[in-house]
Amino acid sequence: MAKRELITIPARHGKAAFVKKGQRVKVINTHGTQVVDTWAFNADNLREFMSMEHLRVWVGHYRAKAGDSLITNVRRPILKWLEDTSPGVHDTMLAACDRYRYQLLGCKTYHRNCNDNMWEAMIEAGYHPSETPSPLNLWQNTPVEPDGTISQRPTASKRGDYVLFRAEMDAVVCFSACPQDILPINSKNPKSAHFQII
Amino acid sequence: MAKRELITIPARHGKAAFVKKGQRVKVINTHGTQVVDTWAFNADNLREFMSMEHLRVWVGHYRAKAGDSLITNVRRPILKWLEDTSPGVHDTMLAACDRYRYQLLGCKTYHRNCNDNMWEAMIEAGYHPSETPSPLNLWQNTPVEPDGTISQRPTASKRGDYVLFRAEMDAVVCFSACPQDILPINSKNPKSAHFQII
Repeated sequence: MAKRELITIPARHGKAAFVKKGQRVKVINTHGTQVVDTWAFNADNLREFMSMEHLRVWVGHYRAKAGDSLITNVRRPILKWLEDTSPGVHDTMLAACDRYRYQLLGCKTYHRNCNDNMWEAMIEAGYHPSETPSPLNLWQNTPVEPDGTISQRPTASKRGDYVLFRAEMDAVVCFSACPQDILPINSKNPKSAHFQII
Repeated sequence: MAKRELITIPARHGKAAFVKKGQRVKVINTHGTQVVDTWAFNADNLREFMSMEHLRVWVGHYRAKAGDSLITNVRRPILKWLEDTSPGVHDTMLAACDRYRYQLLGCKTYHRNCNDNMWEAMIEAGYHPSETPSPLNLWQNTPVEPDGTISQRPTASKRGDYVLFRAEMDAVVCFSACPQDILPINSKNPKSAHFQII
């Protein structure tokens, strides 16, 4: 893969890529309204992966943000979050959507979903994870309200906003342009997004 | 195992048990100050388990509470939370403590931890999980503050407080009396707890 190539995460689909330690990954919210579910795996051991429940202990807040080291399930940094041009509204709390979620939302036929997108994209790239980690949901605006409830709102980002990470180990990053079109998190109109390895 | 037997979760250790669909599980904070990390697995398929990231989507709040159906990673109820005599301060957000956590907290030798307690207890009971799910941390007082930070405080419960669950499928429940003695969540004095299958 040529460096700096702009790689498409097609609307409602996923995409994975190898990133060497020290390389940077720029993820672009091309249309501004799109949630991008994000995973990162140790390329040498897929059972080690970026973990939201470990991250929250490490950083001591429920929303990851620029400046944070994003850690794995054995508490080692895998990505360093360098930059964020958006208002910093992202989610670490909610599972990837999956076929069961859409069944519960009333879908009678198969609905594309982030869980299956991760598996498709990882397998397409030649990697076979052992489980589905809970993702970092870039731009997902699902804040904890003062009474403890979790709201589901459209993104707070704008067209072209990006985040920049640095790989802290050889890693496989995986993204899903979330197909959620029933709840408002993607403004009910799932779109593509893009990333670059720099 | 005789019904209603009071089973000890020894201080700093774990304990697991099979629960038949429809049976109830009473977990008792015997000393009041103890966090009990809690897992539940489908007894027929250990790859299906109670999942905090799926639960938060399902219930729409970040703290599980009495009245909630606690669901699995394929979004099926595994436990129904029937009763809670404590103030309802529990955690769904933070990973089980593990050997890596204690290394980062400065421990130079092995420190008992909830992750290994889960594996010890499950294997002792004859079960081999595929991974460590993020636990329901009963009585763990780690609230989200208005600025998004997560505090670590002593429990808000009192001696003898209990929670009562009903198994919604044949399940294996597993508990760890959290060995954390560096941070204040167990008042720096880890103690035993108990449970009953009714």
